[in-house]
Amino acid sequence: MRWYLCASEHQLEHLPDDADGVVVPYPGLGVATLLPRYPSESEAERMIREAADRGLRVQALADFTCSGCEHLSASGHGTFRSTLEYLAHDLEVDGLVVADPYAVELAAGLDVTVVVSHTAAVDTPEKAWYFDRLGADVITVDPSLNEDESTVDAVRERVSARLRAAVNAVTWRDPVAYFERNLRSHLTRRGESPSPYKNDPYGPLRRRRVVRGVREELFDEVLIILGGEPP
Amino acid sequence: MRWYLCASEHQLEHLPDDADGVVVPYPGLGVATLLPRYPSESEAERMIREAADRGLRVQALADFTCSGCEHLSASGHGTFRSTLEYLAHDLEVDGLVVADPYAVELAAGLDVTVVVSHTAAVDTPEKAWYFDRLGADVITVDPSLNEDESTVDAVRERVSARLRAAVNAVTWRDPVAYFERNLRSHLTRRGESPSPYKNDPYGPLRRRRVVRGVREELFDEVLIILGGEPP
Repeated sequence: MRWYLCASEHQLEHLPDDADGVVVPYPGLGVATLLPRYPSESEAERMIREAADRGLRVQALADFTCSGCEHLSASGHGTFRSTLEYLAHDLEVDGLVVADPYAVELAAGLDVTVVVSHTAAVDTPEKAWYFDRLGADVITVDPSLNEDESTVDAVRERVSARLRAAVNAVTWRDPVAYFERNLRSHLTRRGESPSPYKNDPYGPLRRRRVVRGVREELFDEVLIILGGEPP
Repeated sequence: MRWYLCASEHQLEHLPDDADGVVVPYPGLGVATLLPRYPSESEAERMIREAADRGLRVQALADFTCSGCEHLSASGHGTFRSTLEYLAHDLEVDGLVVADPYAVELAAGLDVTVVVSHTAAVDTPEKAWYFDRLGADVITVDPSLNEDESTVDAVRERVSARLRAAVNAVTWRDPVAYFERNLRSHLTRRGESPSPYKNDPYGPLRRRRVVRGVREELFDEVLIILGGEPP
């Protein structure tokens, strides 16, 4: 099964023919997947409706790695919960792609497919087991495992979730991914873009570790990130 | 060389005799090391002065993994910079233990020893190289490497920085450490403590991966975290 991550209406219009479904970044809660651009909230909603109208399966991507305690505060918790419910029940997405363990747990209580994002950096059977027990239906492994048969097999033995590979994604082995994903989680939530040495301080010395290869036969499904290099 | 992480005045009073120096959590900028308690800012300052009076070397720990863009915003940037300068020039610490790449770069411009914390999760030669190039004098590897001679040797070949091991620290292999460190970075900065399922949602299913062993001969120095289990 092939999913494509579409970050713009243009990408959705030019979707490859072999697409079984699309993943749409939903910036309202924060997105940690590193992309050259992010849709606005209204753009994301149009894309979700358009994809559903075309008979595609749709998953919303809200894979923030940090929310600055917002989704855990007394006030923020309700908003967080109701946004997940809005996505599941009003926008009627088929699945939610999340990374934060509490988001996984909450999403598991809704009637949607719960997908752990590659931004959760699952690269060991123990990590996979943890998310499996929280209620994940699908676990995307860290892209460093895309061609690593023995580790993928070891992960599979520990979990009942289906396994997904992400293609054209940054691996956690990238030295800055940890920090950039956190930064992006906050910026996308606020609708802001990074600017060098103001809120893009990680540019110098950056060498992107983007994984383009995959042994598809090791996985139940594949997510292909469309578009150019992450910034 | 042996450093001890002291999170309270009580621990500082009962410091083991073999201590060459102490590391004191400085919550003002955010601390990501997982500890049972954190000193207040004034407590941290008293400890720093007290340790210096006793002739010990002192490093301030500000190893946040996320600051919610604060240290990168137009207003926050100045405060961030001046706090690092305050620690280095007014409190006269001998070193700063940080994790964020931009913090490493800024600290490298001050007259202090720049230490990369284990919270930066350096577990490959490539990650170590990145921080080395940013100006780190000492790099603490992820505790999963504490007894891993071949990886530590490979790291050593790539960097000029000295290598430190952290003992009694949570490894990045812990499935929740990524998210908890982010949460702690924000909470310590605000002077708040986590409470179950309000701002400690990661409790269920949590299995701490604390590393207690180390092959000291592989490292130039060791940091021993005093006190009980991280929460």
